[in-house]
Amino acid sequence: MRSEVITFRTGNRPVVRDITAEAARFVESEADGLLNVFVPHATAGLAIIETGAGSDEDLLAAIDELLPTQDKWRHRHGSKGHGRDHVLPAWIPPFASLPVIDGRIAFGTWQSICLVDTNGDNPERQVRFTFLPG
Amino acid sequence: MRSEVITFRTGNRPVVRDITAEAARFVESEADGLLNVFVPHATAGLAIIETGAGSDEDLLAAIDELLPTQDKWRHRHGSKGHGRDHVLPAWIPPFASLPVIDGRIAFGTWQSICLVDTNGDNPERQVRFTFLPG
Amino acid sequence: MRSEVITFRTGNRPVVRDITAEAARFVESEADGLLNVFVPHATAGLAIIETGAGSDEDLLAAIDELLPTQDKWRHRHGSKGHGRDHVLPAWIPPFASLPVIDGRIAFGTWQSICLVDTNGDNPERQVRFTFLPG
Repeated sequence: MRSEVITFRTGNRPVVRDITAEAARFVESEADGLLNVFVPHATAGLAIIETGAGSDEDLLAAIDELLPTQDKWRHRHGSKGHGRDHVLPAWIPPFASLPVIDGRIAFGTWQSICLVDTNGDNPERQVRFTFLPG
Repeated sequence: MRSEVITFRTGNRPVVRDITAEAARFVESEADGLLNVFVPHATAGLAIIETGAGSDEDLLAAIDELLPTQDKWRHRHGSKGHGRDHVLPAWIPPFASLPVIDGRIAFGTWQSICLVDTNGDNPERQVRFTFLPG
Repeated sequence: MRSEVITFRTGNRPVVRDITAEAARFVESEADGLLNVFVPHATAGLAIIETGAGSDEDLLAAIDELLPTQDKWRHRHGSKGHGRDHVLPAWIPPFASLPVIDGRIAFGTWQSICLVDTNGDNPERQVRFTFLPG
């Protein structure tokens, strides 16, 4: 097993950050196995979607609609509406497990793995990549 | 590790397709380990639910309500409202990891693993089963 | 690989039950590897969130809003509105995979792993912990 933490700059606005290149690089020297991606934060998740054709913005819009940044949340630390960032990882989980075949993630053509970070209060985020040999 | 891709016919309407039998067959010759199920498509997900008692239709109805096929989506390839199919895998992820004990998936009595495919434009779908020995 | 089922008392109301202590204890004698948590029930899921600062109640409120206990569900066994409990695991999945480094789950500071059980008809729940050495 190999495990590594990589830091990403996500800025101070909600963002869907494509981390496919970093994930691919992490496994490229391996053979077959399982890649586990894990976000060690309580206000971010991971999504495997197509990026660059509008779906990243669509996802942020859907999050705003389904988990709005209103005053209704009990959790009240941080910026207004920040409580919804704490509910997000229940719906968009902070882990993902992906098969690796011959050093390549077995993605479909349009799939990317993305860090979903609606929490503008944390401009930097960590992601842990772990490879289990098969 | 053993990995295999199986093709499922999902037709041209939104569908919850039970793939438990294929998953069970894939691991039945194994001992203990972890089964990873992965859908290499950007518009489908996996759900572990009870099937055959209405919950499969309930899930499709809930998806239509929470992620409606409206014109609001930025992603505009394919049929009308197809943008929501691209947001779906963020909420209903295309991966699942299941413990296998003595060649059997450690499911509860009413659990099935299902391919959730709301995208009628792709009548055939692939699912990759991967087994990691424990 | 090591696998063990632990029973939790969840009572007869919807609950977010922190199971971090049991998960941590399960891996503390191990070195590096992957922890798989799996709920063998069709009406419960797992969430990795912060607990104790309101987000557990926020999550239950969000579930009530997005998947309300109305009469609309086709699945009609059990208490009124129970159909939504059967849709829940599609959105809040009953599995999670977490990296373990030197006998400790590689959580972030505010992360806990929780059993999300909206089904008051089942006062006891099982959770299976499985450790795959790295």
